[in-house]
Amino acid sequence: MEVLVPFSTDRPKTRLSDVFSPGERESFARSMLADVLRAVIDAGGHPRLLATADIDPPIEVDTYVEADRHVEADAPANGPLPADVPVTVDARPLTTAVNDALDRHEPTGSEPVAVVMADLALATPEALDRLFRAGGDVAIAPGRGGGTNALVVRDPAFRVDYHGASYLDHRHIAEEVGASVAVVDSHRLATDIDERSDLAELLIHGDGNATAWLRDAGVGLDATNGRVGVDREE
Amino acid sequence: MEVLVPFSTDRPKTRLSDVFSPGERESFARSMLADVLRAVIDAGGHPRLLATADIDPPIEVDTYVEADRHVEADAPANGPLPADVPVTVDARPLTTAVNDALDRHEPTGSEPVAVVMADLALATPEALDRLFRAGGDVAIAPGRGGGTNALVVRDPAFRVDYHGASYLDHRHIAEEVGASVAVVDSHRLATDIDERSDLAELLIHGDGNATAWLRDAGVGLDATNGRVGVDREE
Repeated sequence: MEVLVPFSTDRPKTRLSDVFSPGERESFARSMLADVLRAVIDAGGHPRLLATADIDPPIEVDTYVEADRHVEADAPANGPLPADVPVTVDARPLTTAVNDALDRHEPTGSEPVAVVMADLALATPEALDRLFRAGGDVAIAPGRGGGTNALVVRDPAFRVDYHGASYLDHRHIAEEVGASVAVVDSHRLATDIDERSDLAELLIHGDGNATAWLRDAGVGLDATNGRVGVDREE
Repeated sequence: MEVLVPFSTDRPKTRLSDVFSPGERESFARSMLADVLRAVIDAGGHPRLLATADIDPPIEVDTYVEADRHVEADAPANGPLPADVPVTVDARPLTTAVNDALDRHEPTGSEPVAVVMADLALATPEALDRLFRAGGDVAIAPGRGGGTNALVVRDPAFRVDYHGASYLDHRHIAEEVGASVAVVDSHRLATDIDERSDLAELLIHGDGNATAWLRDAGVGLDATNGRVGVDREE
């Protein structure tokens, strides 16, 4: 399955400004992207980066973090990357860029197109496999807070709209074009890493590059309040 | 499967104090409990309330909300309650009460015992069925923030500890007693309704008593910021 992975090279992860510097946020975003690409490949998908600009240096799925930060010896040893990940550069807003890509690919039942966000650092091949195998002309993995973290499109008439509560909008758009909708119930796919509290999920459930990056950056769990949050060493 | 549903009658849902009065929080907590009991029953489970005190008036799974607030005509029409839900009253802290109940029930592979939190208002029979059918001597549905929102115990040596990051603690305890662990990846089961932002999940994905209660209380989605939150009419 063709899997588009949108990635913004311009000031990524601004909602993590209270924890990381701009350079760190860029590095962290890239470590998450490496994990997402690895999970897509291991789920049998063919990822294509949909980037807002040329990615420099190129993302190397399994070695990126090591180039940037020391990764401890017990960091996960993933298999070799089967092939370079192709990149489409499109500087336009996310919705426009994805819809244009859907136009080019013309998804059908036998040749669906998936869109998987680059900050789903908890995505596993198993979770993505559930999404890829879900029925429906459109299969959606909703994000926490009403977003659309991943979807599979099998109807060429379907269009995305990532503004606002996109999960509800996408259900509505599917209904308008007569496309059936399947919803995938996954905590891993619902957890896009946007805010400070999301980092706790990575430390609790993650085992990839992004989790190693966080630990190396001195971010640890803080269980002093109701839900477990994170704290960073000074 | 025997399914314990712990429920605190004493000042429930204090972290929703910024949205609801004490009386409203009690009413809302009961509407969520009714939804959880319905989902457990529809998943084939036999729920038993583990309450900190006598529940007065008794919970009526399908009609509770109507007794407290007007429910609109399009509220979900659930089937009749197959039987009254038995109640065990135990005023001790959650961990002690659950472990004592596990002692009494002596869970085994053929007669497991589940523990499902009373604020999982998004739980569906399908999500609970995945939990009930998951392998492992212990099956855990982690909650957002490191909690344990639901689990199935098939090993009488396993003990719970709900303090702090209980998901990680429960994995550790299972390891100590040689019990295998299965983890259920479910956004619905990961979403315990504790804080203001959780209410958005109910409005987006819910269709039970608790969602009807929220709408009737004037709580609606607010999409003005990054993630969709909630707003309440004055």
